[in-house]
Amino acid sequence: MVLCALNRQLLRRSSSSCCVFMARLQTSSRRRRCLYSSTHGFNQEETRQKLRAFPGGSVDLLKQDSGVAVLTINNPARMNAFSGSMMVDLEEKVSQLESWTEGKGLVVRGAAETFCSGSDLNAVRAISSPQDGMKMCMFMQDALTRLLRLPLVSVALVEGRALGGGAELTTACDFRLMAPGSVIQFVHKHIGLVPGWGGAARLVRIVGSQNALKLLGGAVKVDPERGLDVGLADGVLEADGDAPSAGTHLQQAEDWLRRYTEGPVPVIQAVKKVVLAGRELPLLEALQTEKEVFGTVWGAPANLRALASKSKHK
Amino acid sequence: MVLCALNRQLLRRSSSSCCVFMARLQTSSRRRRCLYSSTHGFNQEETRQKLRAFPGGSVDLLKQDSGVAVLTINNPARMNAFSGSMMVDLEEKVSQLESWTEGKGLVVRGAAETFCSGSDLNAVRAISSPQDGMKMCMFMQDALTRLLRLPLVSVALVEGRALGGGAELTTACDFRLMAPGSVIQFVHKHIGLVPGWGGAARLVRIVGSQNALKLLGGAVKVDPERGLDVGLADGVLEADGDAPSAGTHLQQAEDWLRRYTEGPVPVIQAVKKVVLAGRELPLLEALQTEKEVFGTVWGAPANLRALASKSKHK
Amino acid sequence: MVLCALNRQLLRRSSSSCCVFMARLQTSSRRRRCLYSSTHGFNQEETRQKLRAFPGGSVDLLKQDSGVAVLTINNPARMNAFSGSMMVDLEEKVSQLESWTEGKGLVVRGAAETFCSGSDLNAVRAISSPQDGMKMCMFMQDALTRLLRLPLVSVALVEGRALGGGAELTTACDFRLMAPGSVIQFVHKHIGLVPGWGGAARLVRIVGSQNALKLLGGAVKVDPERGLDVGLADGVLEADGDAPSAGTHLQQAEDWLRRYTEGPVPVIQAVKKVVLAGRELPLLEALQTEKEVFGTVWGAPANLRALASKSKHK
Repeated sequence: MVLCALNRQLLRRSSSSCCVFMARLQTSSRRRRCLYSSTHGFNQEETRQKLRAFPGGSVDLLKQDSGVAVLTINNPARMNAFSGSMMVDLEEKVSQLESWTEGKGLVVRGAAETFCSGSDLNAVRAISSPQDGMKMCMFMQDALTRLLRLPLVSVALVEGRALGGGAELTTACDFRLMAPGSVIQFVHKHIGLVPGWGGAARLVRIVGSQNALKLLGGAVKVDPERGLDVGLADGVLEADGDAPSAGTHLQQAEDWLRRYTEGPVPVIQAVKKVVLAGRELPLLEALQTEKEVFGTVWGAPANLRALASKSKHK
Repeated sequence: MVLCALNRQLLRRSSSSCCVFMARLQTSSRRRRCLYSSTHGFNQEETRQKLRAFPGGSVDLLKQDSGVAVLTINNPARMNAFSGSMMVDLEEKVSQLESWTEGKGLVVRGAAETFCSGSDLNAVRAISSPQDGMKMCMFMQDALTRLLRLPLVSVALVEGRALGGGAELTTACDFRLMAPGSVIQFVHKHIGLVPGWGGAARLVRIVGSQNALKLLGGAVKVDPERGLDVGLADGVLEADGDAPSAGTHLQQAEDWLRRYTEGPVPVIQAVKKVVLAGRELPLLEALQTEKEVFGTVWGAPANLRALASKSKHK
Repeated sequence: MVLCALNRQLLRRSSSSCCVFMARLQTSSRRRRCLYSSTHGFNQEETRQKLRAFPGGSVDLLKQDSGVAVLTINNPARMNAFSGSMMVDLEEKVSQLESWTEGKGLVVRGAAETFCSGSDLNAVRAISSPQDGMKMCMFMQDALTRLLRLPLVSVALVEGRALGGGAELTTACDFRLMAPGSVIQFVHKHIGLVPGWGGAARLVRIVGSQNALKLLGGAVKVDPERGLDVGLADGVLEADGDAPSAGTHLQQAEDWLRRYTEGPVPVIQAVKKVVLAGRELPLLEALQTEKEVFGTVWGAPANLRALASKSKHK
């Protein structure tokens, strides 16, 4: 079941069409892609309607010709906390990225030089029953899992504060870059909660279960130094203005990302897909997926061009 | 099957009662909780009777008002090696901890300033057939897996020597703290054995498979420095007496633990549960469990109190 | 299914014969051991015939009385690139190692002081359809997965260059030792490809998914220093001649390995088997396998000898 769900996503845009199995997966993926369904007591459309009742802010997507998109969490009056309508926005932007055939990379950041402070407490209070809380979690888990599984190399650009659900959001990217003075903090314990957007499951995979238990159990403030130490941060940026040649934090993040996204679109997407399979699947299933993804680039234009160029130089 | 077994344990004390699935899990968990059953050729009660025939020492449990319990392996005449009756003792103490609704933390240590030297060789000789050896392993694997899965933050306080099965026991805690001069050593190779209490499976998860292969294949002595280096130790204590303000090793371990157990009982238990799910389950199943555990704290008293307090300060 | 496939391999030479389950596994393992079958559209014998049509070079196996074998990738005219017949050679040598009852360790290296540069581009061009490319991957994935699962402690001795499929080959060993000046580089991106021999799935397990994404996405040159840093290298050798007492690179690799292979054959093989189970299987299945492997050494000659020797010294 895990394999099916993941393969459906990995192979959606696969160029191989001969295989009945893959064709079936592709069809079913067009019909429904949500992580949860009625068998989990979940109706995505119903939850979407409920969430829209709590408006405020937006999630903005800028797709660039470079193949790198920028996703901005935008609600500065509330430190970019998620209103209900922003959760719906996020899911829609992820859908748009899923069908972006020219994409290779993604930067996720917050507006006004701070990352995101989780969910808006006003919305929180209005959906106070455990059942509604779990439905909100299912909606956000679906959006963030699909974000993590995009065939793009993704990086969270953390400026200012990433708190609670904002800290969880950083774990839905492949990498995290922290600006000087920024903090990632799973503050859930302080308001009597634990992560519910998948942040605990993903954090364990990034920093190991012992560090995860410390960060959640202690609601530990993670600054850039500690971030590098425990493996939550993959790099620390220069202060804006300190090194004018380095550019803004966003430029620095895009420069950092470029090292891993240079090259033809299908090849970069294939790289992300085989690493994703290696990360999520048991060995034998990861091998099968790797072989399938390999089949999409083997003998394809980028491969043939490279081989022809090698021959010429001999 | 993995999901069912773990969820049964994770959700046993869940406050949500609406869900037929969870109710069924809770019922079945009351009836039987052992990792192995007759389908594995295992009868827990029969093995318990056999083990009782090898008496000596005890495993002592002290539950404290602080919510932190202390479990002491107590057989100093044999460097706290496990007799058969101590294995039965251990399983009973784990059962008591499973039903301790006020618990948040656990320290596991040995009596008389040494940790544990595995199983008593006299008992070992008496159960020399492979079948009986495997039954002893199944009994101990069950007790130690349930120890690791307790909804408590647990730490092994290693003084003196943790040898063989004693080294395996350290891996059944979330963390390991080593006293100056202490050693963890998987000496199994030296007596023609490998771990059988689950120590290899858990060691791989703590230090990675390459370090595990080195530690087992080389029967390597792990002192505190090497422990920190390979990730088997999470901290090193002050020598007793060196820093009087630090207190005894036990006090130091309890102080260390307190950073991660401060807060309401249901919240700390929920933190352990989501990290445990992240550690043991495939991503999608970990997400489902995280959402269920989230449902047990969302809108619960600790959460409502924290939100009310936030409102007041606005 | 993962459990079955792995247990079949782990328990093949198990001394326990009482168990119907294990007996069945052993029988089926004698009939067929390949990772892929007709249900994956794969016919191993057919692919073997096709690969033989691209001759050149060899893969040589030297089994030594020490219990350590040396496997040499031998095609110096092409930097030890794999011709089709060398792929067939490799699979046959893995079969021989699977039935080597006296083995404890394995060194994998390249001829003429360089490791391996992947697959021979001439062979590559001839099998340019995606279907044939995937069949070649299935053949190599099978050979390399079985190499990784041998009950031997294995180490890749990297001299010179390990490029593309050569880099993938290094990940099919338990450890990697790098000679001064050597480089491991997943160059696949530069020829429009991604790994297909299982190198991505295994790399994620060795260095984590973030490092894997960097190494593949950036086609990063990994020298010994960076190898140690990201965890791809487990040690760096002395330059040949610099420290005459250290011996050749091969001698150094064998010396390094000896620390983890000293002891009786069944015990060393059991160590590798429990670590392998811990690495590949979910916790509960790893515990079951550990208990089964424990049953093969408990009360066996090496164990009885060690216990008798302990008694004498009391």
